[in-house]
Amino acid sequence: MPIVTLTTDFGESDHFAGVMKGVVLSLAPRATLVDISHQITPYAVTEGAFVISEAYRYFPKGTIHVVVVDPGVGTARRPILVQAAGQYFIGPDNGVLALVYLNERSRVRELTNRKYFLKEISQTFHGRDIFAPIAGHLAKGVKPAMFGKAIDNYLRPTNLNPVRIGKRHWTGVVVKVDRFGNLITNLRPDNVPDILTRAFTLVAGVTPVEKLVATYADGAYGQPVLVVGSSGYLEIVVNQGNAAKLLGCVAGTPVELTFY
Amino acid sequence: MPIVTLTTDFGESDHFAGVMKGVVLSLAPRATLVDISHQITPYAVTEGAFVISEAYRYFPKGTIHVVVVDPGVGTARRPILVQAAGQYFIGPDNGVLALVYLNERSRVRELTNRKYFLKEISQTFHGRDIFAPIAGHLAKGVKPAMFGKAIDNYLRPTNLNPVRIGKRHWTGVVVKVDRFGNLITNLRPDNVPDILTRAFTLVAGVTPVEKLVATYADGAYGQPVLVVGSSGYLEIVVNQGNAAKLLGCVAGTPVELTFY
Amino acid sequence: MPIVTLTTDFGESDHFAGVMKGVVLSLAPRATLVDISHQITPYAVTEGAFVISEAYRYFPKGTIHVVVVDPGVGTARRPILVQAAGQYFIGPDNGVLALVYLNERSRVRELTNRKYFLKEISQTFHGRDIFAPIAGHLAKGVKPAMFGKAIDNYLRPTNLNPVRIGKRHWTGVVVKVDRFGNLITNLRPDNVPDILTRAFTLVAGVTPVEKLVATYADGAYGQPVLVVGSSGYLEIVVNQGNAAKLLGCVAGTPVELTFY
Repeated sequence: MPIVTLTTDFGESDHFAGVMKGVVLSLAPRATLVDISHQITPYAVTEGAFVISEAYRYFPKGTIHVVVVDPGVGTARRPILVQAAGQYFIGPDNGVLALVYLNERSRVRELTNRKYFLKEISQTFHGRDIFAPIAGHLAKGVKPAMFGKAIDNYLRPTNLNPVRIGKRHWTGVVVKVDRFGNLITNLRPDNVPDILTRAFTLVAGVTPVEKLVATYADGAYGQPVLVVGSSGYLEIVVNQGNAAKLLGCVAGTPVELTFY
Repeated sequence: MPIVTLTTDFGESDHFAGVMKGVVLSLAPRATLVDISHQITPYAVTEGAFVISEAYRYFPKGTIHVVVVDPGVGTARRPILVQAAGQYFIGPDNGVLALVYLNERSRVRELTNRKYFLKEISQTFHGRDIFAPIAGHLAKGVKPAMFGKAIDNYLRPTNLNPVRIGKRHWTGVVVKVDRFGNLITNLRPDNVPDILTRAFTLVAGVTPVEKLVATYADGAYGQPVLVVGSSGYLEIVVNQGNAAKLLGCVAGTPVELTFY
Repeated sequence: MPIVTLTTDFGESDHFAGVMKGVVLSLAPRATLVDISHQITPYAVTEGAFVISEAYRYFPKGTIHVVVVDPGVGTARRPILVQAAGQYFIGPDNGVLALVYLNERSRVRELTNRKYFLKEISQTFHGRDIFAPIAGHLAKGVKPAMFGKAIDNYLRPTNLNPVRIGKRHWTGVVVKVDRFGNLITNLRPDNVPDILTRAFTLVAGVTPVEKLVATYADGAYGQPVLVVGSSGYLEIVVNQGNAAKLLGCVAGTPVELTFY
């Protein structure tokens, strides 16, 4: 009874996610389907990459993850299967699986064997026509090698880490704004260890942040503070408030960090 | 282990969908529950009809679909069971199942046997009191004939196809705006086949559309174009943009098509 | 094959809910996961309490409910397990489970045995680190007494019932605004029985309500009316409209009821 998870930007007001579930269950009726998210911002490949990279390590070996954020559907971009950490990841080769294969020993295959696709392939819905059927066949026990050959030239995004631009200066970026308006940055105690011991100013948007606290509730109401989030990244948060709105930041906003 | 799907306008911020799941699992603990959508626009019967009609064909035989978009709950409108395509559809007789029984050889039953409802029937939540329990009993193996007699006078909506209003002119309608702002029309290559070969102008809202392309990504940024969508309908789309916002259209907006 | 339900304010655009599912399934691969809601308003403990209290009675004995609306995560507030109605409820001791233990004979335990938590406990995501693992171990058959000792001093919110402030006057409150904009009050025919037989004026926001009807569809379009909702509470509703917008009310808005 393998687990098949779904992470997409399809939302839940259309038939898209439901259709993918039907395709998987038609092939593998005993699969356990798990929605991770269908609320990735439309076309936001980086956000999809972040969500699946935070989620997969909590699933058991053998889990099959289908990840579809695919603005280039129907163009030359390739469908791929990534084998990593004892799990499987299926999606387009547009970077949405990059945080998996950059972090784990991986084998990446191009999905070329049309025998395992739906019979008719639309130009606009490969979630239904390619990715879900591959997941169903994999759940049924088809071996990965049957779907296509291993490749090396899959998309490797440029460096996603913060950059040291001076002795005491770093620049980073807001990777994602979460549901609570917390600003998840790409800064982590292991790439800017001074954050745990030295005075600092972190600027993202209108209000400088100068305090690192242990829990969300340790900040004063209305005051942005820094926490080490549950993913290990530094997050700018406001106790029971919305840091993104307060600071005027979105995913992609640059972050500047200075130590004293 | 039958599959029971749910399609409603209940949203996900209330207990409504969760309660229906509890009722089904109390009767049929081994059922596989699948959320198709709880985000149908409130009271939008036509939108619910479209979503289930696009989804069901991808589910296996024996699947039980519960579809609740029910502004008339508690009034005289009848609860029905539709048997079609080897599957089951449960919902109110208000047109929400019409695209199933207009497209498939169907048997329609009125649900009258109160033995299979919850004991107390509210006037406001038949999803919980009637539709979910019928799904649970059906999943447990109760025969459809036990729930009520076949009827012929179920609701048949007027023609949903585009209308030819001149030698080279057609009118249609936007059936649904999807998550990406794509405008799904009721025009299809099989009802307006000239679309594949002749020059045309399609007007919906403020900007005429004059180009048919193969994939979403084939349009110029910011320029609305036409694609044959994954459901076979012509869709007005904007590459990585939102056609509904750009053209000022909503579900129900009329569409005019002229060939040259 | 126990059922594990999830009710949170995590939304569905992040990895949070997906991670909790992964943790449960890693421990109890045969559990049936059910999403009740991840759309509780952020930090709205009372709203979460209402949703789980309306949902649980429709689930079978043995069901495990995980309820995480937890603005104080990482502070001294305790994690608890409530045994009530033959079911299990796991969440923070901040009142989110209060409508369960105030309504049912209950045993409440503090979760103290770290053996059943994840190895590393973050300060910001106890849904992942404490609540989901406890649910997984419970689903696997670990006895409740293993998790921690029974306690008596769990949080008991002040009276949630309406107050009689004069011979013919009551004050209550809007408990929740549902998806359709219906205003669910804490007034019920069993605490204000005159509502069924006497003339009344109920004031919540800008427009007085003076009519009790049987079904949503019995109200005139645009006119707010009262119905006894499916949960037994009096709701202010507008036929196919949005009472919250029409009357300018939100959760927490006071309600005044006068009989004549």
